[in-house]
Amino acid sequence: MLGAVDGREIARISSTGVDVAGAIEYGRTVGGPALAAMTFHERAAALKTLALTLMAGKQEFYELSAETGATARDSGVDIDGGFGTLLSYASKARRELPNDTVYLDGALEKLGKKGTFAGQHVYTTRRGVAVQINAFNFPVWGFLEKLAPAFVAGVPSIVKPASPSAFLTELVFRRIVESGLLPEGSVQLLCGSARGVLDHLGEQDSVAFTGSADTAAMLRAHPGVVSGVVRFNGEADSLNASILGPDVTAGSEEFELYVEQLVTEMTVKAGQKCTAIRRAFVPENLVDDVVDAASRRLSEVVVGDPRVEGVTMGALASVDQRDEVRQSVRALSATARIVYGDPDSVDVVGADAATGAFLSPILLRCDDRDATEPHDIEAFGPVSTVLGYRDAADVVELAARGKGSLVASLVTADPVIAREIVLGLAPYHGRVLVLDRTDARESTGHGSPLPVLVHGGPGRAGGGEELGGIRGVLHHMQRTAIQGSPDVLTAVGRRWVPGATRTEGDVHPFRKNLGELTLGDTIVAGPRRVTRSDIDHFAEFTGDTFYAHTDPEAAAANPLFGGIVAHGYLVVSLAAGLFVNPAPGPVLANFGVDGLRFLTPVAAEDELTVTLTAKQITPRTNADYGEVRWDATVTNQKGEAVAEYDVLTLVAKPDENEDAAAADQQLVGAQR
Amino acid sequence: MLGAVDGREIARISSTGVDVAGAIEYGRTVGGPALAAMTFHERAAALKTLALTLMAGKQEFYELSAETGATARDSGVDIDGGFGTLLSYASKARRELPNDTVYLDGALEKLGKKGTFAGQHVYTTRRGVAVQINAFNFPVWGFLEKLAPAFVAGVPSIVKPASPSAFLTELVFRRIVESGLLPEGSVQLLCGSARGVLDHLGEQDSVAFTGSADTAAMLRAHPGVVSGVVRFNGEADSLNASILGPDVTAGSEEFELYVEQLVTEMTVKAGQKCTAIRRAFVPENLVDDVVDAASRRLSEVVVGDPRVEGVTMGALASVDQRDEVRQSVRALSATARIVYGDPDSVDVVGADAATGAFLSPILLRCDDRDATEPHDIEAFGPVSTVLGYRDAADVVELAARGKGSLVASLVTADPVIAREIVLGLAPYHGRVLVLDRTDARESTGHGSPLPVLVHGGPGRAGGGEELGGIRGVLHHMQRTAIQGSPDVLTAVGRRWVPGATRTEGDVHPFRKNLGELTLGDTIVAGPRRVTRSDIDHFAEFTGDTFYAHTDPEAAAANPLFGGIVAHGYLVVSLAAGLFVNPAPGPVLANFGVDGLRFLTPVAAEDELTVTLTAKQITPRTNADYGEVRWDATVTNQKGEAVAEYDVLTLVAKPDENEDAAAADQQLVGAQR
Repeated sequence: MLGAVDGREIARISSTGVDVAGAIEYGRTVGGPALAAMTFHERAAALKTLALTLMAGKQEFYELSAETGATARDSGVDIDGGFGTLLSYASKARRELPNDTVYLDGALEKLGKKGTFAGQHVYTTRRGVAVQINAFNFPVWGFLEKLAPAFVAGVPSIVKPASPSAFLTELVFRRIVESGLLPEGSVQLLCGSARGVLDHLGEQDSVAFTGSADTAAMLRAHPGVVSGVVRFNGEADSLNASILGPDVTAGSEEFELYVEQLVTEMTVKAGQKCTAIRRAFVPENLVDDVVDAASRRLSEVVVGDPRVEGVTMGALASVDQRDEVRQSVRALSATARIVYGDPDSVDVVGADAATGAFLSPILLRCDDRDATEPHDIEAFGPVSTVLGYRDAADVVELAARGKGSLVASLVTADPVIAREIVLGLAPYHGRVLVLDRTDARESTGHGSPLPVLVHGGPGRAGGGEELGGIRGVLHHMQRTAIQGSPDVLTAVGRRWVPGATRTEGDVHPFRKNLGELTLGDTIVAGPRRVTRSDIDHFAEFTGDTFYAHTDPEAAAANPLFGGIVAHGYLVVSLAAGLFVNPAPGPVLANFGVDGLRFLTPVAAEDELTVTLTAKQITPRTNADYGEVRWDATVTNQKGEAVAEYDVLTLVAKPDENEDAAAADQQLVGAQR
Repeated sequence: MLGAVDGREIARISSTGVDVAGAIEYGRTVGGPALAAMTFHERAAALKTLALTLMAGKQEFYELSAETGATARDSGVDIDGGFGTLLSYASKARRELPNDTVYLDGALEKLGKKGTFAGQHVYTTRRGVAVQINAFNFPVWGFLEKLAPAFVAGVPSIVKPASPSAFLTELVFRRIVESGLLPEGSVQLLCGSARGVLDHLGEQDSVAFTGSADTAAMLRAHPGVVSGVVRFNGEADSLNASILGPDVTAGSEEFELYVEQLVTEMTVKAGQKCTAIRRAFVPENLVDDVVDAASRRLSEVVVGDPRVEGVTMGALASVDQRDEVRQSVRALSATARIVYGDPDSVDVVGADAATGAFLSPILLRCDDRDATEPHDIEAFGPVSTVLGYRDAADVVELAARGKGSLVASLVTADPVIAREIVLGLAPYHGRVLVLDRTDARESTGHGSPLPVLVHGGPGRAGGGEELGGIRGVLHHMQRTAIQGSPDVLTAVGRRWVPGATRTEGDVHPFRKNLGELTLGDTIVAGPRRVTRSDIDHFAEFTGDTFYAHTDPEAAAANPLFGGIVAHGYLVVSLAAGLFVNPAPGPVLANFGVDGLRFLTPVAAEDELTVTLTAKQITPRTNADYGEVRWDATVTNQKGEAVAEYDVLTLVAKPDENEDAAAADQQLVGAQR
């Protein structure tokens, strides 16, 4: 592989002699079981430590990255963006996944009237390998953004970087291996040709590909992928649109934001981004203004060796890549004319334009409304085309001619216009960004996929999805509907299901620490009679004098109550009075309530009983307590459910000293 | 097409001359826009009315169904099952989708520290057609279970029934068209060959296929599907397993349940179900017992004309189909032996075995642990193979040899065994049913996909998913991450987003009806000082004397509080006292609270202010009120958030008489 800036040899690459089938088997039989032995939270902790370790030594990655043609800004997107993705996944997994290996999807589905048979969707880890075929433009981010969700899911990865920049991926991979932070077999690197890999895959494996739409189509139809029903995810270059809203006037703040973003997207990574703006849609009467303003800004771009001070756009990945872009610009020129830049000539700072892969930014303008080229031909470099449009419906239709894109952006100051255009664009896009003066400072930009948002798009963009926080993790898991009795569903999902066994013991469940508490542990408390004077008093004390609690005649006219009813907040307050165990103990706090529903009105003289059952127990990995979710049901004297909700508490783990003492005790016992 | 029972001609079928491209275009340009003009709730209402209409005239469907070889029980599964699926989708859509055309997926993602830029995933309707290629075994259910989720999503369907039973699909379709209940272009029927359909599809279209794994693979790799990046969903026959748990003993209740279910699955639809049990896994020492017990039950099966009293198993769909099954049985016999039935001879009641497509139930037994045939060869008829296994890990591994199945069932009385085997099976299955004496009466059975649970499976089962309640609807929509300011996200998703404009008007928002209320309408109320005597009194009044509210010394030792704190329920009760508007008005009731989190402890002398903002407004289609979700934030005198939650209320729609009066008034005004 040759350096992008000066054409000198950086590395040699080959996969000749690699036992591809062996690598897949190694992932399945060594990496898979090692990951399966860890919970989501433990995998997250490993990723976090890894990210911090890599960040501490990032200088060498930046230095090598310049050889790919990347400026410091470009390298930041790639390198810090990659490490940031690991951290984001570590954080999401800790907050949104249980400290377990099974993820529950959606609510319980009651399947029988008596409640003896129900359904629960769960996600479990697929037992294969995730083959990740990356593009050349982000050798670090592309590697880590695919690795992170697979790793959290518990699926071992086989990473195949694109050859032109594989040397940088390899360096990061080497540091990962040296760190010893990831389990054996959980990540493997395959540089060079990936020939043969797809022939060995099966129904538990997946392929995630980033690159050109043509290659995506070829892989999707590969006999190994088709016959094995291998899960395939494509993420391909697309003809992304950026739209200047019909409400925006020349010279306004939104106008400047639009032009600035267009030029940024053309020059970052020298326009070699799947998400770059290829089509700039502008109201017909503003085409001249946009072309002028963009050209002015483009004239300030300094092309050259990215290591040289003042250079704002580096080289393309290779001379071949540059020649391909030149060819695409020629094809685009059939119906558009170049209004800025020259594909065959560029001023270069600090490098030789003859040996390096340099290219001027190129802005085209297409006034032919029927032209197909701007919607079909992607020049994968610093190249965009400005096109005019008539109104909101027109620009939605024009954008759709791209046949599916990763991203579109819209610059408008009008939320009503935003709704119309955004919902028109949405079926054709994986991401839509709306920019205006209020969010511009915090906007992450048209071209930046974020770990918490899905990345991908329909049609030409590959038809896939990656990232999106936990959504990306679930792509590596299998969703299964489990049907069974409440006790079975409780055991499988480790979340107590209504109808499952409740255990009322001698010990109040609030007196049990996280190690002692068991799903189904229950306290039944009450009854507590609610009197009219309770209701009057509560209204007066809290100030909640809503007529249903205070005015018998008006309350009787209410279609739902038919008379004075107790406040819902009074009901849950009294219920807490019934179930709480007051003395200091393992329950540290009630930090919230979920899904509270008032099901039957409570009238004066009704008697309330509360049943509280341990529903879900989530120890935190890095704290001496965890979360316990309790199922709370308040019933009246007729047995009708009055209120249902989940009570959320923090509960202490067993005292480690006590544990040690207990262990000592056992040892003593054993020795006797 | 020939009748299954007597071989006489029922119908003729051909798609010669059909303008397939025109049908697709008609769906896109007529059906799509008609559906797009309806909300999810309106589509649901149409489906419900349709289902009730079809049900009222179901007798003729039952009569025609017998010509497919179906018994009355078989027809019930197909016909009532199909109508029930429509009703289930109508109900799910009303309860779980907004009365709008956009579905919000997951929580808001904060993307900037200042809260000016955020992300929200939305689902919007894809703009193409859903091509539905169905199998012959369920001409009604197969038609409607694919139609319902697409219709709710707003995507027009083109339905292609399998030819052998298309005459029944056609009759139901004809009644649908006659009813006039579905919008023009929203459903089209294509009988005969579907040749050419796939060539005209693009990135907004989808294909859902049910049938053999081989055909699924062919369609998946079809150039039209691959190049158009058409969304493809496969649901294929698979070698489904049923496992007798290692804890079960011969003659126990669970043993009987296992055998009964096995025989039922062999004989319903004469075993022509994608979900039928093909592999019966039994502890090695119970193989003899299971074979004996199953054979006894099989000997009671009466094969014949399904219209004849006493017949419990009808004909296969066609003589060709029967001959294929015979061939598969021969192939299975290489490593298994037939222990019940004769593929070449069967006693038939009320029909001629020579002309009808009749076959005896066939039970095989395979004692060769290395045999591949039982895991690879599917005899699509009343055929199952009994295989022995050693322990839980062994049976999980054996079941996985099917390379992905639609469903597995496990009969066990032990929830711990259930967890181990279910989680082992899950990565290879779309559905797993656990049967025991407690859920047997309400169990819907191994072979029954349910509208609320996903149907599909990895690998050989097609790698797809359909049904699953709203999950099935979302398969027809495009997920898009929307990034923008809070005001833009509020406008796009019609759910108020923190940071978006709040409007404090002269009128308390509780005095506005559903037509007057606007997202962002806000009331700020307070402050209310919380005194130590308030806390003491609340503890005494409610009985909630938890030490953090009553014991200064113990409260000071709590790691989170550092001293006496107010009850969370006191905080929300006082907040209600601040924001409630007491007089009768459009707000009818507070029916619940969601996502309540206590964020900062409240100490004595803290002053509480509450801000309540209209967050989501959902009119009900069939009631004179709707639901309003309010964002509630309680802050203290330092401006710190103390509690955050959603308050759920029922709010009246505008009075229709008042509306009429207002309209009259306008008319008078206009005439002046």
